[in-house]
Amino acid sequence: MTTVGILGSGIMATALAFPLSDNGHEVRLVGTHLDRDIIDSIKQTRVHPGLELEVPEAVRAYQLEEAEEAFEGAEVVMSGVNSFGVRWAGEQLARLLKPGMHVLSIAKGMEAEENGDLRILPEVLAEQVPGQLREQVSWSAVAGPSIAGEVAVRRDTCVVFAGPDAGVVGKMSRLFRTPYYHVWTSTDFVGVEVCAATKNCYALGAGFMEGILDSRGESEARYRNYDYGAALFGQATRELGRFMELLGGEPETPYGLAGVGDMFVTSMGGRNVKVGRLVGSGLRFSEARERMPGVTLEGAAAIEVIGGALTKLTERGTIEPGDFPLMRHLHSVVGLNEPLKMPWSTFFGGEPEA
Amino acid sequence: MTTVGILGSGIMATALAFPLSDNGHEVRLVGTHLDRDIIDSIKQTRVHPGLELEVPEAVRAYQLEEAEEAFEGAEVVMSGVNSFGVRWAGEQLARLLKPGMHVLSIAKGMEAEENGDLRILPEVLAEQVPGQLREQVSWSAVAGPSIAGEVAVRRDTCVVFAGPDAGVVGKMSRLFRTPYYHVWTSTDFVGVEVCAATKNCYALGAGFMEGILDSRGESEARYRNYDYGAALFGQATRELGRFMELLGGEPETPYGLAGVGDMFVTSMGGRNVKVGRLVGSGLRFSEARERMPGVTLEGAAAIEVIGGALTKLTERGTIEPGDFPLMRHLHSVVGLNEPLKMPWSTFFGGEPEA
Repeated sequence: MTTVGILGSGIMATALAFPLSDNGHEVRLVGTHLDRDIIDSIKQTRVHPGLELEVPEAVRAYQLEEAEEAFEGAEVVMSGVNSFGVRWAGEQLARLLKPGMHVLSIAKGMEAEENGDLRILPEVLAEQVPGQLREQVSWSAVAGPSIAGEVAVRRDTCVVFAGPDAGVVGKMSRLFRTPYYHVWTSTDFVGVEVCAATKNCYALGAGFMEGILDSRGESEARYRNYDYGAALFGQATRELGRFMELLGGEPETPYGLAGVGDMFVTSMGGRNVKVGRLVGSGLRFSEARERMPGVTLEGAAAIEVIGGALTKLTERGTIEPGDFPLMRHLHSVVGLNEPLKMPWSTFFGGEPEA
Repeated sequence: MTTVGILGSGIMATALAFPLSDNGHEVRLVGTHLDRDIIDSIKQTRVHPGLELEVPEAVRAYQLEEAEEAFEGAEVVMSGVNSFGVRWAGEQLARLLKPGMHVLSIAKGMEAEENGDLRILPEVLAEQVPGQLREQVSWSAVAGPSIAGEVAVRRDTCVVFAGPDAGVVGKMSRLFRTPYYHVWTSTDFVGVEVCAATKNCYALGAGFMEGILDSRGESEARYRNYDYGAALFGQATRELGRFMELLGGEPETPYGLAGVGDMFVTSMGGRNVKVGRLVGSGLRFSEARERMPGVTLEGAAAIEVIGGALTKLTERGTIEPGDFPLMRHLHSVVGLNEPLKMPWSTFFGGEPEA
């Protein structure tokens, strides 16, 4: 039995407590300052209000001020916050981690330097921890197609644990693996994390297909708009491959769970698809954003970061202006508030002239 | 203006008449012996009963016995039948083709030799035409994500025309290309056609995810089964890549329109997904098949052909028993009527031991 401390009690972090507790591990779930009501609810009723499910017996809930107690004796610590909270989580880990602990991160996103260089989030997380301690713990991450609620109700789910140390990710995977939660491992840390971040961007585009039907009063039309979504999916897959070349991931990483698998599941619904649908229906992104007050949109944020970085990388001559046409258009729509006008002829290396 | 003769008046063949006629070409649509009612309907009311749409003015409808008249002066001839009709269509073309004509095929499937060797359908089609004439015409095919009705109502659609001769596929693509029908070209004839055939098989599996919810009385459950579908999509993509190695397609072909793009759109619905859903709900394939009388299931047929061939190729030592685990399981379910039990641990090179 292993003790696992989880920082953050959102739906994904909490869902991962289900396979852990099914394996007999003790899970200590620590809410952030934004999670007070969640922790109160679990303490009082055992129900996670976001998941609308009872959490397993083996899960103990802690408010943030109880974090030190919660992490006492933990062998594994999960950074369970989303991409917006990674720096904050790193600062907390700086005071909570002890040498020998294993850190597992679930946030999907990237950060860009001033010059356009892109970095994966586990790197950003680790950087908040002072050098010596940082070297004395391990850093890995969870990726692949995984909807929180589906994990929590124990639907078959296939994921990838990635990190620089094969032994560590192997060990982490064994803690979580159950008959429904299937875990592969990868040492292509950069490739897996870049796929995790970029597929969120492309999945926002999947919302356009329904939105365009809405804009034409064809929301209930017999003939849908799947050809549109499929073409985006194809171009997105091509660009995932190009990101591997640019950022140093393994060429095959996009063509499995972390890439097309996760992009498929994220395209099936959720907040990013919803805001994409509003844009497809004819709204500018800023208007669509206003219709979803208080909702965090990781895909949109990732588009701003990654799309903005592509502009700088182009200025520096690292990439060509014709590279990543779909990501660039997503950036012009989401980051620059331009109208949606899919640049089909720029896809797949350029449509031949008519 | 070019005259295009189309043999077969099913929904896909007829849908392709829309971009052609939008470009000012004359389209002569010839029904097969199974299409008599369709042709009667178009002649009398202009409505295609399957599409439930009026066909364009430039389309003239012919019964099979009028085929010679219809093909008179045609520069391009489309084999518009599905995979079940390819040999028949080839026999008709043997009497209808004239030297210099360009043949374009739309059927998605493969044929297997007795020893397990797999062949693409345009090859089978061409073989029915005597050697000399066969060399005097060109052979190309249409692939990529394209739902017939969506093309006919002029939704944005991105496809690939593939064939051995870049000049010919370029010329063909120019006949069809419109502001909504976007056409790329490829000389990876084998790779594109193998993707077209195999994605149909994998898309049947996409039906399992809903069916499994049905089997548990959770058809309306908040938490769906997308993680399951996403994992299959990831493994299927991996196997598309493996098929390129086995059959000689270009490595990148699966990761664009002909592969993941078409697999995405085919996974969104249709007959194959429907029969997959019935299997997912707990029926054996033979029972599911009986509930869909008279419906042609190209994906299921392709699974029987391709899955059966894999068994023979394994016996011959051409591939390893661990290769293509998803296709093999689809074959055991669809071809051998075995129960559905997804072999997760065999995917992605094998799940590490717990």
